[in-house]
Amino acid sequence: MLATTGFLDELFDKGLLIETGVDGIYGRSGLFEEIGDGFQNLVTRYAGTDNAEVVRFPPAMSRAVFERSGYMKSFPQLAGTIHCFHGDGAAHLDLMQTIEANGDWTKGQTASEVVLTPAACYPLYPTAAKRGPLPAEGRLYDLLSYCFRHEPSRDPARQQMFRMREFVRMGTPDQVTAFRADWLDRGQKLIAEIGLPFSVDVANDPFFGRTGKMLAVNQRDQRLKFELLIPIESEASPTACLSFNYHQDHFGKTFGLETAGPETAHTACVGFGHERVILALLKHHGTDVKAWPAAVRKALWG
Amino acid sequence: MLATTGFLDELFDKGLLIETGVDGIYGRSGLFEEIGDGFQNLVTRYAGTDNAEVVRFPPAMSRAVFERSGYMKSFPQLAGTIHCFHGDGAAHLDLMQTIEANGDWTKGQTASEVVLTPAACYPLYPTAAKRGPLPAEGRLYDLLSYCFRHEPSRDPARQQMFRMREFVRMGTPDQVTAFRADWLDRGQKLIAEIGLPFSVDVANDPFFGRTGKMLAVNQRDQRLKFELLIPIESEASPTACLSFNYHQDHFGKTFGLETAGPETAHTACVGFGHERVILALLKHHGTDVKAWPAAVRKALWG
Repeated sequence: MLATTGFLDELFDKGLLIETGVDGIYGRSGLFEEIGDGFQNLVTRYAGTDNAEVVRFPPAMSRAVFERSGYMKSFPQLAGTIHCFHGDGAAHLDLMQTIEANGDWTKGQTASEVVLTPAACYPLYPTAAKRGPLPAEGRLYDLLSYCFRHEPSRDPARQQMFRMREFVRMGTPDQVTAFRADWLDRGQKLIAEIGLPFSVDVANDPFFGRTGKMLAVNQRDQRLKFELLIPIESEASPTACLSFNYHQDHFGKTFGLETAGPETAHTACVGFGHERVILALLKHHGTDVKAWPAAVRKALWG
Repeated sequence: MLATTGFLDELFDKGLLIETGVDGIYGRSGLFEEIGDGFQNLVTRYAGTDNAEVVRFPPAMSRAVFERSGYMKSFPQLAGTIHCFHGDGAAHLDLMQTIEANGDWTKGQTASEVVLTPAACYPLYPTAAKRGPLPAEGRLYDLLSYCFRHEPSRDPARQQMFRMREFVRMGTPDQVTAFRADWLDRGQKLIAEIGLPFSVDVANDPFFGRTGKMLAVNQRDQRLKFELLIPIESEASPTACLSFNYHQDHFGKTFGLETAGPETAHTACVGFGHERVILALLKHHGTDVKAWPAAVRKALWG
């Protein structure tokens, strides 16, 4: 039986996570990062000879690309736009007086040309499309970046800034659905190898509002999203640690991505919640990493 | 003789950096990241047996802490605040109509409780102060994070989102100035080992406005900041790749950080511009990494 509270406090007490004064924004200890490195190496091992092209985007992306992506239509409540000060000396004096008077100085900030990356793959699609039509075998990318979702929470598995590893497959419907089926299998083997209990289920994204409810139903009906769930904060509501998504032609149409055909490319991705898997390991094997089962340590660190 | 233009285009052509449509926001290739990993391992080797405490903060931090830090007083032009949508279904409908009409939808975004991290050490000071007075030997931290500075530029060494490795020393004035002197020496040896030309000079931060000019003069007069400079984009204006900063009691006073004394703690840091060193290596040794001098490859990858 897992405790349903207190895990975050335990992580703070052991120094694995470090409080910063904001729920969902935490420092990570060196040990926490070593667990993460071990997990990433394991994911790379499971990717085997897939020969994915490694690309690493920073945690912010073009606002113009973000607007085209449709993210604000589906998930406006989670997005973060980056705003800056564009004023002169007089405006700066005003700003400083407002801060000193504990006033709201942020109203003077205006939107920059960048927003926070909401999922590792968002910056990829337009850059991939710019390379021209896909080769006949399609393409496969290996991504990892910090992502932002504005959902302050005391559940350590629901952070505002977290890392996501992603493999993204682009090609024909057959190519990308085969990729997803493959990773649905690999993902379960990987999580079993590190000794974690899990289930796999059809799922939906947290679409916003009333229209969003219909989008969610549609997504489930078409089985476009599967999640590998592991109990972390709650046994009743296990946490999605891996997700397997078939986007159909959504990104292909939006960003003009074409197959060799040429037809509109389909895309699929598998995403790994970096912090979530680390937290699952700490929850199930304990915070004394040296006492973890030998097989788990071997899987992570060889 | 270094070319003063075209380096960014060369990096794009070779696929080392990937355009995203915004100056200073680039994807990195797997090879670019491998060079960076090699450099970080080398830094860790030079840190030797210092036994710094490893902490990794995400690229966003508490806005309340940021306000206290004084960053908006000194560098308002560089900061990025994170704004979110807090509206209901009707507000969302408005938002979507504004986006579709190419209007400015960002005005409806309101400030969240987080801002982008401007330098790797900013989130550290309050969390360090919360642990109580420093032990007699002071403390040493090892940090690395993505940072944001709003200065769009075509100079690849001036990115809006970039990584900074930092060692931060907290203690008495003697302890922290000895640390800085030590790293001034180590830093030069490290850069010499990877075959890069450099100079070291007293420097100042880019303080904002007219008052800022006085702050800059004061910082130079007191020799509070040194930089290790390497020509990258321009030979005439070499780029600061490492910086060695003595903050005196600025952060100690601001965040209530005390020595064992107890007196207000002094702090110093050495910062490594992760991307800048990678770019310096590519500039001086060429983009064909396999053809780099054997000694440089050995320093980076053993």
